[in-house]
Amino acid sequence: MAPTMGASDSKASSPTQEAESNAVASKNHHARILHIDIVKMTRNKSSIRSVIPSGAWGLGLLSQPATPVIAAPTVQVFDINITESLVLAAQDGWCKALLQISSDYASGGITKAKATAAKVIDQAYAFEFGPVAFKPTLTTGKHTFRTTRAGALANFVGNDPSFPLDTGFALTPWRTCKVVNQVIQLSGALAITMGNVVFSDASGELTSVDKTWGFMKEPDGSVRIILHHSSLPFKP
Amino acid sequence: MAPTMGASDSKASSPTQEAESNAVASKNHHARILHIDIVKMTRNKSSIRSVIPSGAWGLGLLSQPATPVIAAPTVQVFDINITESLVLAAQDGWCKALLQISSDYASGGITKAKATAAKVIDQAYAFEFGPVAFKPTLTTGKHTFRTTRAGALANFVGNDPSFPLDTGFALTPWRTCKVVNQVIQLSGALAITMGNVVFSDASGELTSVDKTWGFMKEPDGSVRIILHHSSLPFKP
Amino acid sequence: MAPTMGASDSKASSPTQEAESNAVASKNHHARILHIDIVKMTRNKSSIRSVIPSGAWGLGLLSQPATPVIAAPTVQVFDINITESLVLAAQDGWCKALLQISSDYASGGITKAKATAAKVIDQAYAFEFGPVAFKPTLTTGKHTFRTTRAGALANFVGNDPSFPLDTGFALTPWRTCKVVNQVIQLSGALAITMGNVVFSDASGELTSVDKTWGFMKEPDGSVRIILHHSSLPFKP
Amino acid sequence: MAPTMGASDSKASSPTQEAESNAVASKNHHARILHIDIVKMTRNKSSIRSVIPSGAWGLGLLSQPATPVIAAPTVQVFDINITESLVLAAQDGWCKALLQISSDYASGGITKAKATAAKVIDQAYAFEFGPVAFKPTLTTGKHTFRTTRAGALANFVGNDPSFPLDTGFALTPWRTCKVVNQVIQLSGALAITMGNVVFSDASGELTSVDKTWGFMKEPDGSVRIILHHSSLPFKP
Repeated sequence: MAPTMGASDSKASSPTQEAESNAVASKNHHARILHIDIVKMTRNKSSIRSVIPSGAWGLGLLSQPATPVIAAPTVQVFDINITESLVLAAQDGWCKALLQISSDYASGGITKAKATAAKVIDQAYAFEFGPVAFKPTLTTGKHTFRTTRAGALANFVGNDPSFPLDTGFALTPWRTCKVVNQVIQLSGALAITMGNVVFSDASGELTSVDKTWGFMKEPDGSVRIILHHSSLPFKP
Repeated sequence: MAPTMGASDSKASSPTQEAESNAVASKNHHARILHIDIVKMTRNKSSIRSVIPSGAWGLGLLSQPATPVIAAPTVQVFDINITESLVLAAQDGWCKALLQISSDYASGGITKAKATAAKVIDQAYAFEFGPVAFKPTLTTGKHTFRTTRAGALANFVGNDPSFPLDTGFALTPWRTCKVVNQVIQLSGALAITMGNVVFSDASGELTSVDKTWGFMKEPDGSVRIILHHSSLPFKP
Repeated sequence: MAPTMGASDSKASSPTQEAESNAVASKNHHARILHIDIVKMTRNKSSIRSVIPSGAWGLGLLSQPATPVIAAPTVQVFDINITESLVLAAQDGWCKALLQISSDYASGGITKAKATAAKVIDQAYAFEFGPVAFKPTLTTGKHTFRTTRAGALANFVGNDPSFPLDTGFALTPWRTCKVVNQVIQLSGALAITMGNVVFSDASGELTSVDKTWGFMKEPDGSVRIILHHSSLPFKP
Repeated sequence: MAPTMGASDSKASSPTQEAESNAVASKNHHARILHIDIVKMTRNKSSIRSVIPSGAWGLGLLSQPATPVIAAPTVQVFDINITESLVLAAQDGWCKALLQISSDYASGGITKAKATAAKVIDQAYAFEFGPVAFKPTLTTGKHTFRTTRAGALANFVGNDPSFPLDTGFALTPWRTCKVVNQVIQLSGALAITMGNVVFSDASGELTSVDKTWGFMKEPDGSVRIILHHSSLPFKP
């Protein structure tokens, strides 16, 4: 039998919907090396909180003594967007990961470096979801673009006969890695950043690259790189 | 002749790109009745400001005395996303506009009400860009959905032989209009809200409707409705 | 030591990047009842294919005998967007799931129906990621909006003391469920649909509701409902 | 007086909403040099058309002789997304525009070239909406990034004391310009492309650059560049 509907009148019972805890918190408890800070931030984004829409009330309403008295709502916000904070944390995560691979190479050789690099790529790049637009700093010719996990791994730690020219960018004894953003563009779950990344090595020598990154936030709060274009500064 | 490239070395001159004013401010000076507050907010979103990415620096870096000294960058942020503030302002604009049509009808009759309603629809709904998903509270049968400007106008002020059942929702002597949000979802330039809108009329009688809205922010900062589903509360 | 850069000239070696299989295929092999068709479609979206950009070549170029001969590239497309096909499949999945709960109730009672409904909600709604904007057809008062998994489950199968008025919409002996779309809006990973859903029960009686849905595609190709506003037709 | 609601029953009159023409077509009749092809394509995207959701019907329904007979709906699609076709057309438009500036310089000198370049930048780049992430091929030092209209103009035609090193990339007697895409990423109104652009000059010499572009589609169907990172191939 189909549901039946009775008569109805226009008297409104003031809606005082009780806030109900949403399930997002538990979901975000994955202890990913790179994403711990990111997840912390993300969990807050979807939490339940009260919004005082004072800025959203017109004079016409305030001047009405007859304004219906309704309990301030408890608004639940579902923010699918990536934020500037998430982007800065992801960039910092990338730098930390590069330094980690570099120090693991010094302490444990190529085996240890490769294992760390593989973990980093799986956590920081979106290869599992589709082709990543990746133009590393030092790749060239037919292997300029690294749209696959294997191509990215070779760029970081080399030692792959399929990419004979790769010496492994992360095998340099990097000591510091600093991101200097010039532009950050936020568009939904995607963010684009452009600026420089400056590295210093064991001898204190600095290397600066022109860097464009595209970051994608996934529904669970993880952030992954889908675009990475790095190039050495042009010299006239 | 093609551009030539000389040799290059890896010494990086610390990038101290001078901040350059972007053109977005001047663009947003359109004095739209509904969007004045919105534009004010939007202009701030893209302004140039300094970002201290303190939260984005790892212990590994801070412990490095050799960290290269680089001037804090001036980051320009291009925020394409709609914000909760913009959404609340747009909802408030919708309420104000409804009350305006209602009072214009009282003071100037259907001619004045229709002129105001037409302006409101062009400013607040996205019919100029595509079919709006609009299910008004009191429409029915083959005219339930109003995906065109004409259908929306008839719903607000009636008096259109193509929509004979429309009495004009905005012609009721509404005195107050209050939005009570339960959920706000933010996804890039789009936002979805769900909750109640409570109206009071000249007799003080309250009408509450269950309301879903979808708002779209355009690159110039304007916000328009692309989704509007309104229904009377179900009565068992 | 930092990477060194040698001299460079402007002769371009024609880029003939070999296509490399991306990792998305393996990722999408999760056998979800509702998403089998969806996943099939999605896997194709990111696969490697050749694009003949004939439409993208200007007369100016074609008239040039000196046009450089470059092998047609193998373009890899990473499509984050939800498509109309995915939306139609997800709507169909919702109808099939409703009919499944209904027949499981007939064959196995509330226990079987509740188990199926729980699975359906976890697969078809985005409660694990954030608050879902859900206004079911027959809910009312302070329980009008169901932003949590528990509230959604009660709407489908009832039998929850926290929601005493819920009789369980899916427990009706539904026989058919048909979606009649009026508007489909596609915006990145989000799609909004508005139209009717028409149900027939064991007695052949028809029930039509006005329905708005919002669907979100996740990076792995799954599609979930983040918005669901259902209402009975207004009767003058 | 508030709207009244009478009783209601569940018999549904089959919804046969008449298709109503939406306003998008007329809107897109702006004859922009770069966007003629783009607009043609865009107009089709939002036009009204019939959808046969055959793929979306389950066996359960087809086996029902009692399936309610409902006229196939006329679905209106509002596609906010940028498409691969739009992206290819915009890339082709960029190449045509570069060749136009180059030939205008040959025929009318810097005055004519600068006028064309200014028009091109206003039509093809999003400076009016926010800071564009633009790293041209041949810029360096503190002027590496061109986030403003003035900086972009100087890169194309030089002759600006504020950018003394700019010789004007578009003043080279370019004869052909070909885009060779490796990856195209589609995410709502945004698309990212990565690959090469190969130029040939009057002497037949080829120049290939590694190119990343970000394109944004506006609600009126226009497409503008928000990201542009160009770099010379790395030479070991």
